[in-house]
Amino acid sequence: MEFQIAKEELIRALSRVQGIVEKRSTNPIIANVLLDVNEKGMQVSATDTEVSFVGNYQVECVRPGSLTLGARQLFDIARLVPTDQVRFSLPEGSAQMEISSGKAFFKVIGLSSKDFPSMPETSDGYSISMPSSSLKALVDKTLFAISSDDTRTGLNGAHIEVDKDNGSSHLRFVTTDGHRLAVCGQNFDAGDADLPDSVLLPKKGLAELRKLVEEGDGAWQVSFSQNQAVFQQDTVSFSMRLLEGEFPDYSQVLPGDWQRRVLVARETLVLALRRVSILASEKSHPVKFVIQDGSLTIQAKQPEAGEASEEIEAQVEGGDLEIGFNARYFLDVLSAMASDTVCIEIGDSLSPCLLKPGEGDDDELYVIMPMRLE
Amino acid sequence: MEFQIAKEELIRALSRVQGIVEKRSTNPIIANVLLDVNEKGMQVSATDTEVSFVGNYQVECVRPGSLTLGARQLFDIARLVPTDQVRFSLPEGSAQMEISSGKAFFKVIGLSSKDFPSMPETSDGYSISMPSSSLKALVDKTLFAISSDDTRTGLNGAHIEVDKDNGSSHLRFVTTDGHRLAVCGQNFDAGDADLPDSVLLPKKGLAELRKLVEEGDGAWQVSFSQNQAVFQQDTVSFSMRLLEGEFPDYSQVLPGDWQRRVLVARETLVLALRRVSILASEKSHPVKFVIQDGSLTIQAKQPEAGEASEEIEAQVEGGDLEIGFNARYFLDVLSAMASDTVCIEIGDSLSPCLLKPGEGDDDELYVIMPMRLE
Repeated sequence: MEFQIAKEELIRALSRVQGIVEKRSTNPIIANVLLDVNEKGMQVSATDTEVSFVGNYQVECVRPGSLTLGARQLFDIARLVPTDQVRFSLPEGSAQMEISSGKAFFKVIGLSSKDFPSMPETSDGYSISMPSSSLKALVDKTLFAISSDDTRTGLNGAHIEVDKDNGSSHLRFVTTDGHRLAVCGQNFDAGDADLPDSVLLPKKGLAELRKLVEEGDGAWQVSFSQNQAVFQQDTVSFSMRLLEGEFPDYSQVLPGDWQRRVLVARETLVLALRRVSILASEKSHPVKFVIQDGSLTIQAKQPEAGEASEEIEAQVEGGDLEIGFNARYFLDVLSAMASDTVCIEIGDSLSPCLLKPGEGDDDELYVIMPMRLE
Repeated sequence: MEFQIAKEELIRALSRVQGIVEKRSTNPIIANVLLDVNEKGMQVSATDTEVSFVGNYQVECVRPGSLTLGARQLFDIARLVPTDQVRFSLPEGSAQMEISSGKAFFKVIGLSSKDFPSMPETSDGYSISMPSSSLKALVDKTLFAISSDDTRTGLNGAHIEVDKDNGSSHLRFVTTDGHRLAVCGQNFDAGDADLPDSVLLPKKGLAELRKLVEEGDGAWQVSFSQNQAVFQQDTVSFSMRLLEGEFPDYSQVLPGDWQRRVLVARETLVLALRRVSILASEKSHPVKFVIQDGSLTIQAKQPEAGEASEEIEAQVEGGDLEIGFNARYFLDVLSAMASDTVCIEIGDSLSPCLLKPGEGDDDELYVIMPMRLE
């Protein structure tokens, strides 16, 4: 195995896999990347056995071959090599990759590519096409609400559903941790996606997917098999194993009729919440919303520290109300949104509160549970 | 007590003290800043009882008074208030400071200024004058080598000495952790400093001093009393309590005659060390220096990971030698230096190694102990 690669191309390949490889495993090979070189180029594979990545990169191949090498160490080398071109050479029968660049020389001990886990097959099943920006929105608007509580496996991922009832074809992500819920749908251009009964995408996979789709424009092919979701674009294939938990029937917690509706400028509410919550307890950040005709006043109070309050302009429909929230939950939702205004629909002081963009007709909504204040 | 202050002036005052106040103390008041307002302005004081700061800031005083408030909380408020001017008002007999800015309102519970620790007196003793840039160099070139080992109290600070023997007046900082030693001296313009027998400045105080002197130009007055070092400039007074440990007689570890001298480009050596040490063990970062006529070769090797080597050009005097170092110690020293070239003087493979700038005649040198390699 022998090849030459541009430093920038090598960095690009290796930076992509740093979040995927797993260093703290009993199986050391999954901390490695598999480099597979032939005349067509270099295929770089990485997996933690749940989330997997395969990408193709340009190299000048002298002699084909394959080996796995420590992903972190190779990335450190790639970033620091002194020349624009890096030469890799693996003597026949050896597992020691020789890497040279200018006067710098490395001999890195690898593990045989035969022991590397096999990558998930690309699904031949249903597949849809979706722009980067739509996939990015789906993840950005829902990732924060996924539960980190390992005892609630059904909440540890994003629930996916396809909605073709309303004339347009929608792929929808739903997430919740029991305190708040996020729902976001995006149109898809073409294709068909008869989903398996339950599709639950893991948090780590979605966080890596976000990095991938942030990189550029263009459409992604998304397909689902019984246990994998696969995202493909040009030279890259990214897949994640579906979680096995069962997502709850979230339609039951979506509030129906509202009794008060408040329309406020989103950024104004964000800043007021940040300021007032300085005086809220650090444990659950409790703040009180005082809703009156024409205004929303946010208040916080701690007996030993003091209090804060701020009134902001609001269009209010319905009667006066006081209701408590965890300020952090509200800020998470407001940060996921992009609209200028936000519409808050409330029943009474103990019922779930619905947030959605104040303008536009996006398939995007959030539910936040209120909290009892002293 | 009532006053108005510009948001920027308030942020400037409070950002300065965040590193000084101590939140994890049994005495809660030292997490606070003392605000003392009169017609001349606002004096802001902070202390952890070892390191103390007093600064004067411009306010529009309506009614004089004083109170201590949580430094962190007040800083959070200062950064987030919505208007350029912030109004503070403390009702007579109350400890609840009312802070208002636009529609944002805070009532923050303070602690009486009577319970705030008294600040060290400004010394009437010997005092010298020194430019910011010189103080900055003293700290930058020595701070890294201070020991963090609490059992070796004599090494937990920078040892200060005044040298008037060589015609010029020098203030010199010396630090060591037993593995490496840093010495830096700077001329002082005027004044006299007959130091107490032992002056040992604490690490936290020096780290805060570095931030202060980085802020601007101009001269600082530096004075020492039996238990305090005081740094003053314009509207600011900063002091630190001297440590009580005894600094060792470092002259005994300064190498005398060398047997090999190596002159290399500093940045070239830094980059080579960074690259080669990727393959050094993460525990003590052992690398081997192979010194030959005209070149220095750096090598690292781990049985399970592989090896690295890089040859760099060097002017070498004396015979060939192989010697081991902790690469991290070498990189710390090279990062503290600013010269284009560095001169390395070595006895044999077990004796301390001396580093100094390759050009110029600065009062600046470093000693690094070698390590035995397998």
